[in-house]
Amino acid sequence: MIDDRDPSRLYVTYRVYAEDLDAVIQAARVEQTIEFPYDLAPEWIRETVVGRVEDIADRDVTLSYDERILDGAGGITQLLNVIWGNVSLFDGLRVIAIELPDSLLASLPGPRFGIDGIRDLVGAEGRPILATALKPIGLSAAEMAAEAKILAESGIDIIKDDHGLSNQPWAPWSERVKAVAEAVAEANSATGGRTLYLPSMNMPVDRLRDLAYEAKGYGAGGLCVLAGITSFDSLRAFAADDELALPVMGHPALIGSYALNPRQGIAPGLLYGLIMRLAGADMCVYANFGGRFGPSREEVLSIRDNCWRELGPMPRSLPTPGGGMSLQTVPAMREMYGNDGAFLIGGALRRGDLRANAEAMRAAIS
Amino acid sequence: MIDDRDPSRLYVTYRVYAEDLDAVIQAARVEQTIEFPYDLAPEWIRETVVGRVEDIADRDVTLSYDERILDGAGGITQLLNVIWGNVSLFDGLRVIAIELPDSLLASLPGPRFGIDGIRDLVGAEGRPILATALKPIGLSAAEMAAEAKILAESGIDIIKDDHGLSNQPWAPWSERVKAVAEAVAEANSATGGRTLYLPSMNMPVDRLRDLAYEAKGYGAGGLCVLAGITSFDSLRAFAADDELALPVMGHPALIGSYALNPRQGIAPGLLYGLIMRLAGADMCVYANFGGRFGPSREEVLSIRDNCWRELGPMPRSLPTPGGGMSLQTVPAMREMYGNDGAFLIGGALRRGDLRANAEAMRAAIS
Repeated sequence: MIDDRDPSRLYVTYRVYAEDLDAVIQAARVEQTIEFPYDLAPEWIRETVVGRVEDIADRDVTLSYDERILDGAGGITQLLNVIWGNVSLFDGLRVIAIELPDSLLASLPGPRFGIDGIRDLVGAEGRPILATALKPIGLSAAEMAAEAKILAESGIDIIKDDHGLSNQPWAPWSERVKAVAEAVAEANSATGGRTLYLPSMNMPVDRLRDLAYEAKGYGAGGLCVLAGITSFDSLRAFAADDELALPVMGHPALIGSYALNPRQGIAPGLLYGLIMRLAGADMCVYANFGGRFGPSREEVLSIRDNCWRELGPMPRSLPTPGGGMSLQTVPAMREMYGNDGAFLIGGALRRGDLRANAEAMRAAIS
Repeated sequence: MIDDRDPSRLYVTYRVYAEDLDAVIQAARVEQTIEFPYDLAPEWIRETVVGRVEDIADRDVTLSYDERILDGAGGITQLLNVIWGNVSLFDGLRVIAIELPDSLLASLPGPRFGIDGIRDLVGAEGRPILATALKPIGLSAAEMAAEAKILAESGIDIIKDDHGLSNQPWAPWSERVKAVAEAVAEANSATGGRTLYLPSMNMPVDRLRDLAYEAKGYGAGGLCVLAGITSFDSLRAFAADDELALPVMGHPALIGSYALNPRQGIAPGLLYGLIMRLAGADMCVYANFGGRFGPSREEVLSIRDNCWRELGPMPRSLPTPGGGMSLQTVPAMREMYGNDGAFLIGGALRRGDLRANAEAMRAAIS
């Protein structure tokens, strides 16, 4: 690690599994910037634009980049490109640490609500937050709405669409979002609760903004965004929209491959925690350990820590583990997250009576 | 392979590296659809919505999905999600074949121009197409424009921005795109050539549409889209825009990790060829074998074949290998692609005199 970081630079630490360490370092710092024969580049460009080697510790190499290469347009497309664009095509290289320049942290919106904001919105003082998904695909909009009503009445804080819900004929997007938002509003007004409904933005990217406003018009309380499918920057655009001002959940569909190759890609903590948070996710969804997917406990702790770590003025994101969660896993979850996590329970609520299960779950975390 | 395919279904063949074949198959067909306890789903949903096991040959498992699960909204977000959404979080599973339902092939725009259309646009009869990139980052807009003018005068067909060019202060996006487009137009009108300039759409996703029209207004002849960064569906949205009607190049930044893990992810031919083409890329960029990145010759042939294969009414995409290409590699390239490829030459043009190198390259492929 670098002790005297220059706050105007981006630092990326790669673990090099490929054999020729020096060749990989030289290739990466050029490939991620000028993609041009190094010896032919003007001297000022070699010194200013090309990545700089800051540290080599065993096989861990820290490169740094001038903040000016990152963009200036307000998005995070070029940030992702500098961290992992062309080197994603290299074998034997893995991103294991990222430190952001101050200017970027100040200019990115980050999570609009963060942990404290979400807690205020749903009224979850002194306890973790409870989330679930509407499923299975195939139910009608009315059936989804009826299910959502039961879940909201039972005290579930966040109800999201199953992420695969798009515009299928069984429950077309607009019809479903309207019906579910209204059902949740009805439940809230009956119970005095503040459950939020987050429709899945698994829809064409050129319609995302309009659809988000349509959802807000129906009363949706947030959005579930498939960052790997509609882009991390689409999440950033939602988070940056002051008029929309809805909390955003970042879902990991499609991006698992970045984290699963032990000698290549992006470490899970950075992918599911840091990058999702930089993109503006108030809630970062990922697979819990011990569930039906396979991250290790250590990897999950790193995701949590990246949701929570200090990043200048940027609010913390709510770690939102899901996949195979149940009543039985609540104690372990509380130990790991305290009150600063959201537990995403899906299938486990469905075995037996939905209302009774949801109420039991709510009681267990209170 | 399935002999009697149902043309209304999506077929995805996975190679299973994980030990418990049956458990993985059952998990995948449920995970990619209902994400719900199978035994609790209504019977019609189990039969209609859940993926169906069509074939098991050794470790290769073909699942099929009802076309109705794919969307109906006009994008490809849910197509990507059904192929590789949640199973991207599984270890030991790799997509090795995809067959699309007829309705999807008919409803997706696909490449607007395709190989024949691009050939007509640039006037490249009876020869391959020649492409290069403006670089290095750090040059001013005027320097990029001067370089572009030389390249266009020398007969390069396609000049794209280096994909990392975004809105850096050295050559801000609007200033650069305007200057380069004008320089290329000037060269074209002097030589009678028809060189196209493709600015990099490495910019915020919520501004992409406006920026594309801005670029077209300056005279840009196409767009270079970072499908892994701004989303495959952003490429689809450009390809679908009848008023914009510009050719689109799909660039592979960030997505290398999907293809590089031998026991997980998506086979290179499907990722860089088929999926890029389905998204509408007239030109599919990927790393050539023997260059500075490392795909095998066999993988490159598979990308080529996916650019070329019959897909209902969908035009073929132009295979566009890049990375380490030079004058010396032209014979091997011609052998592999005939006239139906584009050769993307970057750094090699820069060693010595740019104009002389570009002219020599142009002569070599004519």
